[in-house]
Amino acid sequence: MSANPCIRLKRRPQGVPAVEDFSLSEADMPDSGVLCRSLYLSLDPYLRGRLSGRHLSGPIMPGDVMSSEAVLEVLEESERFKPGDTVRAQAPWQAEMRIPEASLTLVPVSIQPPSLALGVLGMPGLTAYAGVERYLKPQVGETLLVSAAAGPVGSTVAQLGKLAGARVVGLAGSEEKCGWLRGACQLDAVINYKHEQLREALERTCPQGINMYFDNVGGSVLAAAMERLALGARVVLCGLMAQYNEDSALAGPNPGLIIRARACVQGLVVYDHEDLRDKMRASLMDAIQEGCFQYREELSDGLESAPEAFCRLMRGENFGKTLVRVR
Amino acid sequence: MSANPCIRLKRRPQGVPAVEDFSLSEADMPDSGVLCRSLYLSLDPYLRGRLSGRHLSGPIMPGDVMSSEAVLEVLEESERFKPGDTVRAQAPWQAEMRIPEASLTLVPVSIQPPSLALGVLGMPGLTAYAGVERYLKPQVGETLLVSAAAGPVGSTVAQLGKLAGARVVGLAGSEEKCGWLRGACQLDAVINYKHEQLREALERTCPQGINMYFDNVGGSVLAAAMERLALGARVVLCGLMAQYNEDSALAGPNPGLIIRARACVQGLVVYDHEDLRDKMRASLMDAIQEGCFQYREELSDGLESAPEAFCRLMRGENFGKTLVRVR
Repeated sequence: MSANPCIRLKRRPQGVPAVEDFSLSEADMPDSGVLCRSLYLSLDPYLRGRLSGRHLSGPIMPGDVMSSEAVLEVLEESERFKPGDTVRAQAPWQAEMRIPEASLTLVPVSIQPPSLALGVLGMPGLTAYAGVERYLKPQVGETLLVSAAAGPVGSTVAQLGKLAGARVVGLAGSEEKCGWLRGACQLDAVINYKHEQLREALERTCPQGINMYFDNVGGSVLAAAMERLALGARVVLCGLMAQYNEDSALAGPNPGLIIRARACVQGLVVYDHEDLRDKMRASLMDAIQEGCFQYREELSDGLESAPEAFCRLMRGENFGKTLVRVR
Repeated sequence: MSANPCIRLKRRPQGVPAVEDFSLSEADMPDSGVLCRSLYLSLDPYLRGRLSGRHLSGPIMPGDVMSSEAVLEVLEESERFKPGDTVRAQAPWQAEMRIPEASLTLVPVSIQPPSLALGVLGMPGLTAYAGVERYLKPQVGETLLVSAAAGPVGSTVAQLGKLAGARVVGLAGSEEKCGWLRGACQLDAVINYKHEQLREALERTCPQGINMYFDNVGGSVLAAAMERLALGARVVLCGLMAQYNEDSALAGPNPGLIIRARACVQGLVVYDHEDLRDKMRASLMDAIQEGCFQYREELSDGLESAPEAFCRLMRGENFGKTLVRVR
C-alpha cells in the first residue's frame, strides 16, 4: 500500500460503471494549501455524468483522481482553521491532500456524526429543502409524489412533505426500501416501481392526480408521472438517474402534458440555494432531535472500497446516503 | 343553397386536413336560445386537436357541425341583449343559430372592426398577454424568443416583449412573414425556420442565450430552443402546431436541459386567464391607437370558404389571424 493512496478513473465507463473502470494508485500532492486527511467521501449519482464529461460541475477524465464532496480533518494550523477541525470541501479521493483554505468550510461540531454534513444536513438535504420550500410549497391535503424516495434527497423531500401536511407517495426499487418508507417514514403510499405496473399504481395511489412531483430519475418514471398531473401541478426536475448510464440524453415527456395540467416544471440545481443552508440545517436538526425525521446512511470502509460502493450506487443497490469512511 | 347552411366534419382528417374532410350541409335549429347570425368565425390551430378527439375543449366527431369561437349579431330581443348587438360565443359554423343567453358575451362597440374581438383583442391577444404578464415578465435587455411569431398570439407576445424593452427574436415560416416581423413589428432578429439551420440561427441571434421562450409549436423547434436557454430562463408552452397533424404525441426535450438552465417551464391555457381580459384589451387598444402595435387578419369570405381557410391555416399558409366573414 502506498504512503498516500488515491482512486483514479482508469477508463470511461460504458453503461453501468464497473470496479475495473477505477484503479488504486499513488497520489500527487500539491505544494500549497491546508494539509487535510479524508474522513468521509460523498458518493452521488451525479458523479456518473462527470465521468461521461456531461455534468455542469465539470468532467473527470481517465487518469484523473476521482473527486467529490468530502468531510476532512484539518492536520495543520492555518489562518482560519486549527488541527482537528472538521471541514467540508470538494476533494480528491485520496488519504491526505492539500486544499486551498478558501475552498474549505467548517463543519459545526453540533453535526454528529460529521458524515451528516454530506447527507441529510448537507447537499442532499439542501437539495430537498430548496425544492420543497422554494418550488413545491406543499399545501395540506395535496398529493406529493417522490421518485428515488429512499435516497437521501427523496426521503428528505418526502418527510418535509409529510411535515407540511401533504399526502406523500414514494417510489423505490426494493421491498426493503419500500418497507422503510412505509414504516419509519410513514409515507401514505409506496410503489415498488420494479414490481408494479407504474401507471396503474399511480392511478390507485394518486386518485385525485399529482399536485407535486419531485423527480430524481427522469426517463419512463417521469413520463408516467406527467400523465397524472393535477391542474396547477408543480414539478421539480432534480436528477436523471435513468439516463446517467446511457450514452445519449433521453427524450422528455410530451409538452402537451404540461400544457393540459397548466403545470410549472422547474429545474433545480443545489448550488443556487446555498443561502438556505443554515435554515435547512436548523430545521432538519430540530426534526431529527424530536425523533420525527428519519435518514439512512450506507457506509463502506476504506478508500479502496470506494469504486465498488460507487458501482453499487449506480446499480441502485445502495440504501440511503452512500459514503466511504476513509479511516 | 339551403336556407340555413352549415359546415360539418365529414370524416376524421388523416394528417393535414383536406377540404374533402368537410361538407356543406343543412343546419338543425334548437328550439330555445337567442336567435343570432354569424358575422365572423375564428379559425385556430387548436381546433385540429378537437378533430382528433384530443383537445381539452372536447372532440368534434364526424357528422357534427364544426364549431369555434365566433362573433355574432343578435337578431331578437332577450333579457340582456337587443337586436343589432354584437356578441361573442362558442358557436356552430352556420349562418343562423339559437344560443343560450348565458353563453353570449357582449362585444363593446369600441372594438372596431368586431373581428378584433376574435384576434388581437380576443382569445389570441389574451393568451399572449397572460403569458407575458403572468409568466415571462420580460426585463429590459433580456432576449425573448417567439415561435409562430407572425401568428396572432406570437406577434402579440413579440410586441409586448418589445414594449417591455426586451430583445425579441421571432421564428416564422415564410419570407413575407419574416419581412413583416422585421419591418412593421421591428423585431431585433427574425429566423425563417424553413430556410435556415435552426441551431446555428439561434446561436447567431441569441448569443447570450434565451432568457424567455414562448412556444406555439412544440416538436423540433422547442427542442432546439431548449438547448440554448440562459440560466433562469422562463418558458411558456402554449401550442403544439408541430403535432396537431400527427397521429400520436411527440416526445419533449430532454429534462436535463431544464435542470441545466434552472428553467421554469409553464403550461398556459387561456381559459385560466379570463380575469385579465379587460386589462389586456385596454392595454392593447391603447398601443394600437398610438400606432405602436401591429396586427394582421386574413379574412376569407362566406361560410362555404371555411374548410379551405382552415386547411390553409393547418398548412401554415395563412398570414395573421384567420377568420371567415360570413356575410
